Amino acid sequence: MSTNRITLMHGAGGSIMHNLIKDRILGVLKPYMGFEVPLAALDDAGVCNGIVFTTDSYTVKPLFFNGGDIGRLAVSGTVNDIAVIGGKPMALSLALIIEEGFMLDDLDRILASVEHTCKEAGVDIITGDTKVVERGSLDRLIINTSGIGTRNPLLDANLKHVNRDIRWLLDSNIRAGDRIIVSGSIADHGMAVLSAREGYGFASSICSDVRPLNRLIDRALEAGGVVCMKDPTRGGLADLLNTWAERSHVGIMVYEDRIPVKESVRAAASFLGIDPLEVGNEGKVCIATVADRAEHVLAAIRECDEGRDAQIIGEATDLFDVVAMRTVVGGTRIVTRPVGDPVPRIC
Amino acid sequence: MSTNRITLMHGAGGSIMHNLIKDRILGVLKPYMGFEVPLAALDDAGVCNGIVFTTDSYTVKPLFFNGGDIGRLAVSGTVNDIAVIGGKPMALSLALIIEEGFMLDDLDRILASVEHTCKEAGVDIITGDTKVVERGSLDRLIINTSGIGTRNPLLDANLKHVNRDIRWLLDSNIRAGDRIIVSGSIADHGMAVLSAREGYGFASSICSDVRPLNRLIDRALEAGGVVCMKDPTRGGLADLLNTWAERSHVGIMVYEDRIPVKESVRAAASFLGIDPLEVGNEGKVCIATVADRAEHVLAAIRECDEGRDAQIIGEATDLFDVVAMRTVVGGTRIVTRPVGDPVPRIC
Repeated sequence: MSTNRITLMHGAGGSIMHNLIKDRILGVLKPYMGFEVPLAALDDAGVCNGIVFTTDSYTVKPLFFNGGDIGRLAVSGTVNDIAVIGGKPMALSLALIIEEGFMLDDLDRILASVEHTCKEAGVDIITGDTKVVERGSLDRLIINTSGIGTRNPLLDANLKHVNRDIRWLLDSNIRAGDRIIVSGSIADHGMAVLSAREGYGFASSICSDVRPLNRLIDRALEAGGVVCMKDPTRGGLADLLNTWAERSHVGIMVYEDRIPVKESVRAAASFLGIDPLEVGNEGKVCIATVADRAEHVLAAIRECDEGRDAQIIGEATDLFDVVAMRTVVGGTRIVTRPVGDPVPRIC
Repeated sequence: MSTNRITLMHGAGGSIMHNLIKDRILGVLKPYMGFEVPLAALDDAGVCNGIVFTTDSYTVKPLFFNGGDIGRLAVSGTVNDIAVIGGKPMALSLALIIEEGFMLDDLDRILASVEHTCKEAGVDIITGDTKVVERGSLDRLIINTSGIGTRNPLLDANLKHVNRDIRWLLDSNIRAGDRIIVSGSIADHGMAVLSAREGYGFASSICSDVRPLNRLIDRALEAGGVVCMKDPTRGGLADLLNTWAERSHVGIMVYEDRIPVKESVRAAASFLGIDPLEVGNEGKVCIATVADRAEHVLAAIRECDEGRDAQIIGEATDLFDVVAMRTVVGGTRIVTRPVGDPVPRIC
């Protein structure tokens, strides 16, 4: 593949995608810096005049997988992007791009899933668009959801526990000493999608975690002391931690034995030679807190069904500026930013 | 094509698309009616808590055509959808979905066009998303832009000239006696895209009208007396007028000799057997005003370059409940809602 063309890695959430966006897209777009959170922050959402605004297109293949479908993904992903920055989701848009010949029954199932997930998240569709392209011009269906939200009313009380000048929960907020929590087991979503696509025998034992997380995030904010949140989607935990280290100018140390990975997922990933740290999730959030609030936040989210396997997996440090992991066998390895997600089209 | 599958007409802006959305999508989604302008209004944008919110995906083929490209289209279309309902565009999202192998040079050209059109419209990109799908899964590039806006500060003064309980410029606002203005010649965009796609000899003489219209719309609101606006995109003027008649429960009479159509466009459409009334536009707006303000609004928009060919093309009536056109040869014909746009993938 010539270097003057787009490759799959340009969309896979790792270093190649980050470079495309930073060098090429921001180079041409010259983003306006007057917004509260501008495009150039490259965070999960932008903010202007107190309105949180985010967008995501969903190209997942296949459309239906164990534990979810593109409709549930499209609502959850956008709700979560609003929530992790400190927003309260207010309304979503729903843009359908459909290949000619798509089964109306499948469309009905996906729309029902959109409706169900919206109700679960407490949000509603307010505007939409429907496009159809001729057969062969699209792989069945793509959905874009964008979302708007207001400032989460729990955010100010949460920030009272943080002695720092923070207004939104940005990737650049983390300081040495902050603790890092993950809300549950990693790599479930990517491995479930891969299983459904490739028809592996372990498909039935691995289930996507896709779900809206705004209620769990509210519990964390009620506990207080959260400085930053982000959902480890494309590129997985490895990409997220490197993004935090880079944007906050800190090192991050995590402990392998504290990172929850389901046994079935670990076995499948090992069989396929895939690092679970690099696999995308759609129902997990990483939360950075000030040190003395980490146990409170952990206890609060463990009370939610979707956070019952949460763990404090590490902390930020000023002793080095990379992401390092103390392994179960006793050594320490650098966790680099993956070049891309090992499983393409998970979202 | 079996009736349980999506066809191209389901996305072509005519009666088949309207039925899909009304019967099938709204049937499953059960849209929340508590918003100021809910999804069920099926207007150009939704409104909640004073925030105007809209979304559009752009699948135009080819990506570059005489007078524009997909980047200019994506910014203009979304800015216009915010503006026509009475919003002032505040920020846009930009979601790119790219086929593996896409030329980076073409991406640069399109991003430069996005940037240029944003500046022209006085709006900025605040958030984005980039997805890449494998070769053969997409026809080159799709863009989704969503947009948010606040209430246009010119709207209240405009509505002082309208003795009616109106808050936003909705399709349901029109009453018998209101005048209907079109801001310039119709069918330019659709015919330019068709020409570029099919390589017709008349390609060079037909140029798309794609452009942001928010400044022209501001001039119309300053003049005062506007009750409703809409841009005649997919399905063209014929679809727009039928939507207005249906949602406002009025008849509409238009006069063929007052509807501006460029001679080159008329000739090409005639040659191809296409009705210019059914062809999509991307740089025109239809404006309904109270009768005694129509000339003021017309004069105001004619002062803009993009409105210099504007005409009062007809009026709403309670004598019948369809769209009728007095033809140049002296008869009257019913203008029905097209089943779809005769030119697919114009946007």
